[in-house]
Amino acid sequence: MAGEEEVSNKQVLLKDYVNGFPKESDMILRTSAVRLKVPDGCNDAVLVKNLYLSCDPYMRSRMGKVEASYIDSFTPGSVITGYGVARVVDSSHPKFEKGDLVWGMTGWEEFSLITSTDGLFKIQNTDVPLSYYTGILGMPGMTAYAGFYEICSPKKGETVFVSAASGAVGQLVGQFAKLLGCYVVGSAGSKAKVDLLKNKFGFDDAFNYKDEHDLNATLKRYFPDGIDIYFENVGGKMLDAVLLNMKVHGRIAVCGMISQYNLEKPEGSYNLACLIMKQIRMEGFLVFSYYHLYPKFLEMVLPLIKEGKINYVEDIVEGLENAPSALIGLFSGRNVGKQVVVVAPE
Amino acid sequence: MAGEEEVSNKQVLLKDYVNGFPKESDMILRTSAVRLKVPDGCNDAVLVKNLYLSCDPYMRSRMGKVEASYIDSFTPGSVITGYGVARVVDSSHPKFEKGDLVWGMTGWEEFSLITSTDGLFKIQNTDVPLSYYTGILGMPGMTAYAGFYEICSPKKGETVFVSAASGAVGQLVGQFAKLLGCYVVGSAGSKAKVDLLKNKFGFDDAFNYKDEHDLNATLKRYFPDGIDIYFENVGGKMLDAVLLNMKVHGRIAVCGMISQYNLEKPEGSYNLACLIMKQIRMEGFLVFSYYHLYPKFLEMVLPLIKEGKINYVEDIVEGLENAPSALIGLFSGRNVGKQVVVVAPE
Repeated sequence: MAGEEEVSNKQVLLKDYVNGFPKESDMILRTSAVRLKVPDGCNDAVLVKNLYLSCDPYMRSRMGKVEASYIDSFTPGSVITGYGVARVVDSSHPKFEKGDLVWGMTGWEEFSLITSTDGLFKIQNTDVPLSYYTGILGMPGMTAYAGFYEICSPKKGETVFVSAASGAVGQLVGQFAKLLGCYVVGSAGSKAKVDLLKNKFGFDDAFNYKDEHDLNATLKRYFPDGIDIYFENVGGKMLDAVLLNMKVHGRIAVCGMISQYNLEKPEGSYNLACLIMKQIRMEGFLVFSYYHLYPKFLEMVLPLIKEGKINYVEDIVEGLENAPSALIGLFSGRNVGKQVVVVAPE
Repeated sequence: MAGEEEVSNKQVLLKDYVNGFPKESDMILRTSAVRLKVPDGCNDAVLVKNLYLSCDPYMRSRMGKVEASYIDSFTPGSVITGYGVARVVDSSHPKFEKGDLVWGMTGWEEFSLITSTDGLFKIQNTDVPLSYYTGILGMPGMTAYAGFYEICSPKKGETVFVSAASGAVGQLVGQFAKLLGCYVVGSAGSKAKVDLLKNKFGFDDAFNYKDEHDLNATLKRYFPDGIDIYFENVGGKMLDAVLLNMKVHGRIAVCGMISQYNLEKPEGSYNLACLIMKQIRMEGFLVFSYYHLYPKFLEMVLPLIKEGKINYVEDIVEGLENAPSALIGLFSGRNVGKQVVVVAPE
């Protein structure tokens, strides 16, 4: 039986816990072997062929030794895990069968045995690029949706600032805000990204934070009357400048702080007293708490994609062997758009 | 006519904008003269005799040159203003008449002409000490009420931590939380205050932060399972330690940051990434936005006072000439309980 054959399985492993800025050499490529069948006695599991893998900023924290976080560290010497799109090769789970397309937590390898299927979503709509389920139709899309609509309490006409705005989450937040009738400005780290924000994603304006020496003055230029909503992806100096420029009763959705993830000691935030003066609500969130909204989200976003009302840009790298470099590129901002790795042709 | 006589009026003026820690010499005592009558043509005003004046931490920010705050700086060379309890001596306002007792924004002087009466409340219940209207029944009481019930979304059985817990606001927040059935711990800066918290205000436990060298470890000792609600009055290192000890979906009401008010440069907060990991809501607020709830607040709190279900401790200083020293004492934590200055016998 074909499913029982043993095939080679290229894998990416974490070498050891990472301190500071991660390097390609913190990961190891290995080829092992796998039988294309869920082992006997292993119930409610699926064996999948991975098609696309997602590189996401939150993965940095799993590379370090984290304590009491919402998510465990990767295990040194073991395969890295992350979001991906895959095809079911074998299943002992009543909900999944061979041939199903799924997205969710999988391994950085060609074939993965997934025993914890709670976070695995079956893909029903295949008339969009499948890689979108690592991004706009997957975890980052849900993150943008939950963060913007559930945390920011946005209203038409409000002013919105998005940092790391050309990333997988940021580009969507900005477009959701524009669709609602907000004034939207984004920051990013290169001219190419700024151009994307203005020309592809329809932001009202955008700037390269690396060209700005006084972020407080920069924000005053783009928001002379202040910021109603800040979608926080970066932390550090940007947050401090934003706090000075928030409006009364402003809202800050804290999605990520990518500028801080590789620092031994994070930069301090010095302007938190603004929270009082301006009666600001600042709220951290994790997408995991909002997956019950996924069907509602798809209902909104699929038509927008098909009608071309939302644009989405991916930065696609071919081959699992290039995954470590792609992941590390996130932290220097090398990617333009959502970073995806193609593991196998569909 | 008696009301037309000119009498002497002792006053406390701000000498100049203050940097760093305020000193008594930043204020000047002066005696001027006042006619006990609202001047002709001055409509909707009252002339009051001040009975009690309130020393509150927020006043520190008004002593400096502040820009774009919710409240203006004091004017150097002019009388300091603050909350107080007063008796109306003359009125051109239809809502107030001679003899009325009021609380609200008044001057640090014996007699004040109040032309902006929007924030002036008429005192209806006089079967409690009148000085309470500078505290438990005034701005600090409303602050505790709004901050705890409106911002913290408290539930029975939750764990609550209050900093500066023996102050005017903190002592009430802790008692509100106990009445709701929460587990409550407070921090303060002396043994006497810690004793008050435990023995007078019924906190489950309390500690002197000055005796603790590792606030993270301290909080872990008092909250082995974490903190649901933090009522923030101090900022700085305490906030950073609290962030490490919050539970998932915790709430932080940011009421004040007294430890930071006299610093040229505030201490940084380094643990804001906890907001994401633990999905924490951190919200600043100002009592001014909640005064519409004042009647509801009185309805709840007056019976609690009369039935002895809430205790309230004041630190009373006699004489306007001692007001500068009393105000400055707030910032070194010299006061035990709500700091009040008696200007005139009732």
